[in-house]
Amino acid sequence: ELGVCYYPEQWPREKWDEDARRMVELGLAWVRIGEFAWSKIEPQSGVLHWEWMDEAIEVLGNAGLKVILGTPTAAPPKWLVDRYPDILPVGENGVVRKFGARRHYCFSSRRYRVEAARITEMMVRRYGENPFVHAWQTDNEYGDHDTIHSYSDEAKLAFREWLAARYDTIEEMNRAWGTSFWSMHYNSFEEIDLPNNLVEEPTPTHLVDYYRFSSDQVKSFNKAQVDIIRAHSPGRPVTHNFMSQNTDFDHHKLGEDIDIASWDVYPMGGLINGRLSPETKARYLRVGDPDQPSFNHDLYRAVGRGRVWVMEQQPGPVNWAAHNQSPADGMVRLWTWLAYAHGVDMVSYFRWRQAPFAQEQFHAGLLLPNSEEDQGYVEVAQVAEEMKRLPKGEVKAKASIAILLDYESRFATRALPQGRGYVASAIALDWYSAVARLGVDVDFIGQHSDVEGYKLLLAPDLVIPDADFIARLKSSGAKALFGARSGSKTRDMHIPADLPPGPLGDLLDFRVARVESLPDFHRETVLYGNTSHQTTGWRETIRTTETVLATFEGDHRPGTPAVIGNDKARYCATLPRGEFLSKLMGDTLGWAGVEGLPDLGDLRIARRGNLHFAFNYGGVTATVPAADDATFLVGGRDLAPVDVAIWTQS
Amino acid sequence: ELGVCYYPEQWPREKWDEDARRMVELGLAWVRIGEFAWSKIEPQSGVLHWEWMDEAIEVLGNAGLKVILGTPTAAPPKWLVDRYPDILPVGENGVVRKFGARRHYCFSSRRYRVEAARITEMMVRRYGENPFVHAWQTDNEYGDHDTIHSYSDEAKLAFREWLAARYDTIEEMNRAWGTSFWSMHYNSFEEIDLPNNLVEEPTPTHLVDYYRFSSDQVKSFNKAQVDIIRAHSPGRPVTHNFMSQNTDFDHHKLGEDIDIASWDVYPMGGLINGRLSPETKARYLRVGDPDQPSFNHDLYRAVGRGRVWVMEQQPGPVNWAAHNQSPADGMVRLWTWLAYAHGVDMVSYFRWRQAPFAQEQFHAGLLLPNSEEDQGYVEVAQVAEEMKRLPKGEVKAKASIAILLDYESRFATRALPQGRGYVASAIALDWYSAVARLGVDVDFIGQHSDVEGYKLLLAPDLVIPDADFIARLKSSGAKALFGARSGSKTRDMHIPADLPPGPLGDLLDFRVARVESLPDFHRETVLYGNTSHQTTGWRETIRTTETVLATFEGDHRPGTPAVIGNDKARYCATLPRGEFLSKLMGDTLGWAGVEGLPDLGDLRIARRGNLHFAFNYGGVTATVPAADDATFLVGGRDLAPVDVAIWTQS
Amino acid sequence: ELGVCYYPEQWPREKWDEDARRMVELGLAWVRIGEFAWSKIEPQSGVLHWEWMDEAIEVLGNAGLKVILGTPTAAPPKWLVDRYPDILPVGENGVVRKFGARRHYCFSSRRYRVEAARITEMMVRRYGENPFVHAWQTDNEYGDHDTIHSYSDEAKLAFREWLAARYDTIEEMNRAWGTSFWSMHYNSFEEIDLPNNLVEEPTPTHLVDYYRFSSDQVKSFNKAQVDIIRAHSPGRPVTHNFMSQNTDFDHHKLGEDIDIASWDVYPMGGLINGRLSPETKARYLRVGDPDQPSFNHDLYRAVGRGRVWVMEQQPGPVNWAAHNQSPADGMVRLWTWLAYAHGVDMVSYFRWRQAPFAQEQFHAGLLLPNSEEDQGYVEVAQVAEEMKRLPKGEVKAKASIAILLDYESRFATRALPQGRGYVASAIALDWYSAVARLGVDVDFIGQHSDVEGYKLLLAPDLVIPDADFIARLKSSGAKALFGARSGSKTRDMHIPADLPPGPLGDLLDFRVARVESLPDFHRETVLYGNTSHQTTGWRETIRTTETVLATFEGDHRPGTPAVIGNDKARYCATLPRGEFLSKLMGDTLGWAGVEGLPDLGDLRIARRGNLHFAFNYGGVTATVPAADDATFLVGGRDLAPVDVAIWTQS
Ligand SMILES: [Zn+2]
Ligand SMILES: [Zn+2]
Ligand SMILES: [Zn+2]
Repeated sequence: ELGVCYYPEQWPREKWDEDARRMVELGLAWVRIGEFAWSKIEPQSGVLHWEWMDEAIEVLGNAGLKVILGTPTAAPPKWLVDRYPDILPVGENGVVRKFGARRHYCFSSRRYRVEAARITEMMVRRYGENPFVHAWQTDNEYGDHDTIHSYSDEAKLAFREWLAARYDTIEEMNRAWGTSFWSMHYNSFEEIDLPNNLVEEPTPTHLVDYYRFSSDQVKSFNKAQVDIIRAHSPGRPVTHNFMSQNTDFDHHKLGEDIDIASWDVYPMGGLINGRLSPETKARYLRVGDPDQPSFNHDLYRAVGRGRVWVMEQQPGPVNWAAHNQSPADGMVRLWTWLAYAHGVDMVSYFRWRQAPFAQEQFHAGLLLPNSEEDQGYVEVAQVAEEMKRLPKGEVKAKASIAILLDYESRFATRALPQGRGYVASAIALDWYSAVARLGVDVDFIGQHSDVEGYKLLLAPDLVIPDADFIARLKSSGAKALFGARSGSKTRDMHIPADLPPGPLGDLLDFRVARVESLPDFHRETVLYGNTSHQTTGWRETIRTTETVLATFEGDHRPGTPAVIGNDKARYCATLPRGEFLSKLMGDTLGWAGVEGLPDLGDLRIARRGNLHFAFNYGGVTATVPAADDATFLVGGRDLAPVDVAIWTQS
Repeated sequence: ELGVCYYPEQWPREKWDEDARRMVELGLAWVRIGEFAWSKIEPQSGVLHWEWMDEAIEVLGNAGLKVILGTPTAAPPKWLVDRYPDILPVGENGVVRKFGARRHYCFSSRRYRVEAARITEMMVRRYGENPFVHAWQTDNEYGDHDTIHSYSDEAKLAFREWLAARYDTIEEMNRAWGTSFWSMHYNSFEEIDLPNNLVEEPTPTHLVDYYRFSSDQVKSFNKAQVDIIRAHSPGRPVTHNFMSQNTDFDHHKLGEDIDIASWDVYPMGGLINGRLSPETKARYLRVGDPDQPSFNHDLYRAVGRGRVWVMEQQPGPVNWAAHNQSPADGMVRLWTWLAYAHGVDMVSYFRWRQAPFAQEQFHAGLLLPNSEEDQGYVEVAQVAEEMKRLPKGEVKAKASIAILLDYESRFATRALPQGRGYVASAIALDWYSAVARLGVDVDFIGQHSDVEGYKLLLAPDLVIPDADFIARLKSSGAKALFGARSGSKTRDMHIPADLPPGPLGDLLDFRVARVESLPDFHRETVLYGNTSHQTTGWRETIRTTETVLATFEGDHRPGTPAVIGNDKARYCATLPRGEFLSKLMGDTLGWAGVEGLPDLGDLRIARRGNLHFAFNYGGVTATVPAADDATFLVGGRDLAPVDVAIWTQS
Repeated sequence: ELGVCYYPEQWPREKWDEDARRMVELGLAWVRIGEFAWSKIEPQSGVLHWEWMDEAIEVLGNAGLKVILGTPTAAPPKWLVDRYPDILPVGENGVVRKFGARRHYCFSSRRYRVEAARITEMMVRRYGENPFVHAWQTDNEYGDHDTIHSYSDEAKLAFREWLAARYDTIEEMNRAWGTSFWSMHYNSFEEIDLPNNLVEEPTPTHLVDYYRFSSDQVKSFNKAQVDIIRAHSPGRPVTHNFMSQNTDFDHHKLGEDIDIASWDVYPMGGLINGRLSPETKARYLRVGDPDQPSFNHDLYRAVGRGRVWVMEQQPGPVNWAAHNQSPADGMVRLWTWLAYAHGVDMVSYFRWRQAPFAQEQFHAGLLLPNSEEDQGYVEVAQVAEEMKRLPKGEVKAKASIAILLDYESRFATRALPQGRGYVASAIALDWYSAVARLGVDVDFIGQHSDVEGYKLLLAPDLVIPDADFIARLKSSGAKALFGARSGSKTRDMHIPADLPPGPLGDLLDFRVARVESLPDFHRETVLYGNTSHQTTGWRETIRTTETVLATFEGDHRPGTPAVIGNDKARYCATLPRGEFLSKLMGDTLGWAGVEGLPDLGDLRIARRGNLHFAFNYGGVTATVPAADDATFLVGGRDLAPVDVAIWTQS
């Protein structure tokens, strides 16, 4: 199903009816409203204006649209932050972050929790059983503008309480933090401060605990709203719209509290800010990184425990990246089908009409500011038409391979990168991309997840493995490939007692005796399958009794293992990229009995139930890898650039 | 006429007489003093020492020099800022900017306005009718060291008052700022804060209003001094020395209040910090960007409504750029003649003698610190000699083309650049340079100016056009070329109601339906005159009924217009550079009936009255484009590098 | 002798005995403890736990180790900084630098001086005559993490007192600072503020005085501890472990107060952060800059007035650089022999066992975290074995050439770099390197040192020469080569009255009439010995009656002198690098009668008494420049990569 983000408070009343009518006409079923409306609802303390929202819901609902209502807590009004200045977040530099944009609140502000609950409860009591309200969104884009981490006094006090709860005694915390180092001992939790503005880096456990605390604050903030919604709006699913690849809080944990995970799809900015080289960025300029949207669809499908929506789909150029190119004509349609192919059940475009004022006036909508149809509108109309040709109710099947994304491991490498340029999210996306080019569908999991039923687990950066997870993996039928640094830290952010890989040693017998981070101006070479491959960035010296599948070459410690393995698990002691990574992934799939295709180049494929999809991100027409008996529902065997094919086959 | 900047307070009394004598001997007519002398005049609160200044003026005047007296408000003394700390400006980071250099005051400090008026009035009452004082300079280099924008409490209070005056009601301000977006609504002007240290960018209208406010604060601060001077020093012109290409405040507006605009000419630092590529910078290393000084002469001639001086001319290397190369020997002479050719009536060198102490001790003077003649001295002597050969009273004629510099449009793109690397001042200089290479004289204008009498108006970045200006342009005889983004915003910083170009639509029928900012690693191509040209940085998708003069090529929306036009006006939907820009400018001149020369390469020419000038910025001797009947007053037809030719012709 | 850094407070009591036994077994004689132990000694105010330290010293001493005891003042405990917050330093941005790492104290905090003396006195009274304590270290790594300069109120008050003592009257300070410039006059020392957060750069004398003040604060802080140690621990030498090439305080001056200078040898991070091009860094990736460790051995030998130790020698990869590669296997041995060859009498490895927790958990030790031997351990065992083959008591002879490192000159160019990229320490290392490649041993000196007995003095950056030093140099037998900027400032940071080079004029007759700093994209050329050489970065126009040895070429002032000289002294008016520098240094050695070798390429040699050493930093086997009658004690004539040869010859 399709939807759109709409802001009745930004438009004159007289436009609402026509807007609603045109939405339905376009084939949209859902409309999201409300998430930035607090100052319209409550322009002054206790002065409440619900009547416009009543009317907006009425108009939209009567036109046939299902309303997703957002709690308006992402942007508290000015009068509120003036009255209670400790609502405002504090930056890492110690400076208060002022009102004037959005997300100007500290998750630890006790006052803000009261106020957020108050406005949420009022809204939910009013609309919880409204027949036109079919779903709820909590707040908006947790973590946008780097707002998970606040260095306020409120955060300091809450952090102390969190630590006391985690460690029980200060001596247990001293042990975990290693405060015998550099005379860092604490006598009580009241002595603890936040880890900013130090002379040098704090102990990494201090940092990681602060990241964990901040993550937990987001979860509890969100949970409070969910509880209110559940209490007064029975039967309506609750969602939150996550940010692409944000790892500032544990999305798996927050996902437990909601019904559907949704996320915001902005591939153009993703390309500009992303992992690719300038040359590759130039090649994909107006189609985006072919794997970044799919990665996130698959990830948030896991976060939503199977249910995933796109709450905001870019319908044209945006305003917020360093540069803001236009998507190629056709990409809005392509992205919509891509989402569907990866299991997304609702795609909502952001936004209905481009705003001619305020911060996002360069952000396209389905309509131009003057209400003319923009390119996105035309493409959505096409998708809506094409959808009618497809069978309903196709369900995304469980994949044969799973990628592990462990948020605490991300906190660990953020706290202790050990080498500039180590970006765990780019490494994971590189792995995903190598698999995607071989046409293999992927699920994401966390360490809490069931691993049974997968043929292969990919763990690019499982820095802090749970013994319990490793035990479950061991007893499962899955094989596993672990990336460098996997198992390198305990939950206390220590090196495991008998050296890394800690609990991973139960799967694979090796020890990491030395670790190097390496600069870009240097290349290591690895001999793998009789070929020398370049690798960069990271190298470990490991000792093992397992089979050595690849070795380092060159002057330094030649012949030491680069990739090792046994029947169950493999480990790679460097960060493979490019053709080394491709070959490693291809071999690993083969080892695990996962069937892949020859390298798809700029083509990508996906399956949903009986439907097969192909997407062409390249500049020339490509042939779709469909079976001879394929029946094409959309497109055909020859796939033009920026085009989509959908078929069934036996 | 020639002059020099002199600081008697920095030298022992016994040097003054000889200094004055040597100035006159060198051929100087003017001397500027006083602008940093406050702590010498009033070393303690109310303790006034005018006697040294009395004597200095006496010595200089008696030697035959005309004194330009500067008000000393650019550097308040330590005792004053200690007594009234709210004089100090506050940086964008919220930190007070301390005493110890200069320009350490906030334009909004009410206390400083009182103090600045007090010292100015005392000085003007004392010297206003002094026969040796022939002109006044207010303060010094408004905007240097990024001092237009202060984020102090004083500025906050003044900004609220300014907004109240501008908008009358808070609801009108809410409308203009678009505060229905992101819950930004304000209930009163007392809730408004300054636009720094936010979580994200504020609404652009908030920013642009803050820039307008800051600009108005400069104007009123300056006007207060001018009023005092006018009241007590009749007949003496008032000037201010502006900074090259500073666009932090509206120079046209401030220019209304003074008699002569002067500016400070430092082409070596201008090159290092400037728009050119490293290769081109290397080529022009010791001659500077050939067009940056001329651009500013022509600009400040407009700001001074015809009267322009150079208050500070670099006489050798300086101290403040990232690197500080020496000008080529001969450049001081060249720059002096260049100024004259562009209508400058007085060139004052900074400074008489190099200071062996304090911040600028690496800044050359006409004399070395030990009073020996430095290279600049020798060249000034030559200019003084050459000047005698020239007829007096030649007046710069009105040019056939005008370039529009609209400061509010600069505020707009600063607030909302939409793409990193969009630098409006570099774009305007590129346009100027393309015209200068064709040997065409240029005037600058603002939207308040009369456009009648010009054959062609160039508007590289008129983001916010006045309907009134467009109407006057329409009824004039001038043709016009507009650059990308022209007409893209209303005065409220909104997109025009029926899409850009707003009022420009009265000249040229088109609509801008999509805007893209593009990264450096990508090149667009444009088909123009049967040739493909590269362009970068910006691309608009426009619809038009006008003639299409150039089209975009490539995969994305091929064939859409890149340049359009009719008999009256043309519009370019990208940012042309290099040979595309050269060709476009050449064609545009031809279209408007403006006669140009073949590309001058490294030569530049200018006319003042009957005098023709040529300047050789290249490394080899060039032939001057003089008529066959030319009579050379300085130099000749073959022009050596770094040399100047002056001739008359029929 | 060899030693190791050990932290008993970080390990369970039951490991100490075995650790001590293994240290002795490995051949170590010394062990350093205590420098971060404050919070273990005094976990709460006045609660003292010496018993564990008593026992640790007992265990180590009984095992046969000599203890170096560090005062624990580099890391005051949390309870102390909570009680007296003015202990904490303040960063240049004005923000307090918080507890949680180390070096979190301000040298000007009067309270901290009391507390540091208190803990030091208690420790020295307790262990001063302990038979196992053989030496003391004060504090740890003054200046690490940029901690010499604090911008606290305590520093401000102390700075005022320091200025009052230096200048006696405020008018003398006004003269020196040149406050007649920009109205900067002060009426009393109470008006002075610290030179941070200004609108623009302060006067350079303000900056340099602040650097001098900060340097003096370090000296007096250290001296207070030395006095306590001397009073209660007779016969034990006192040392401090300096940071490689730190020039934030005057090491010569501090060196006067201690018995032995020691320093911390981390060549891998030194390479990554260092002066070499990326290509050269890649070539030396795992061996490091061949000259940076030797430079510092020679420098700190001078700081220690002949006695130098290595307190921390990297035994494997570290954790703190942008990238942290492994040393090549063999480098720990090579660095140990290199230290010995340059006069170092004790090399202590940092650290015994890698810590599995806290900030440095990626920092290697001789043992892995699980107590297994790491690579460094093996190499130390080899060195210990090899040492037995060598004669004892060989003493480093005085070198024939000396390099002058004047810390006040470094303060001067830091305050007034005049060109981005001017890095005096890189220039000095370049000079050192050019000499080292010719196999010549070097001493370092300061201006206080005796210059007699040297054939040649190299002064790459003597910006502020003492007249007294120049007089002593003049009357000595030494010749001298001065680099650009030498003599360019007086002690007041003024240009000398009759232009640079000030007092250097007594040696060499010239005047510097113009100075240029030049960007990297531009190359100057110099004609020297009939060959054109490229030079960059700096160019002076000088006038001289001396012999011109090299001249600038090109368009700008061709033929002006680049290198000049007479029988006594030479001066170079640019910054030579690469082959120009090599040739200049070779010629200069010849001129001074210093015998050099042909270019050693990647080989380096050194002499200590009768022992000759060679070190191969290259990737291929090289031939050692040993005499035909050489007797090899370690290695042989053909020297493999990363290998060491030691021989005697007649
Ligand atoms: Zn309730
Ligand atoms: Zn008056
Ligand atoms: Zn004592």
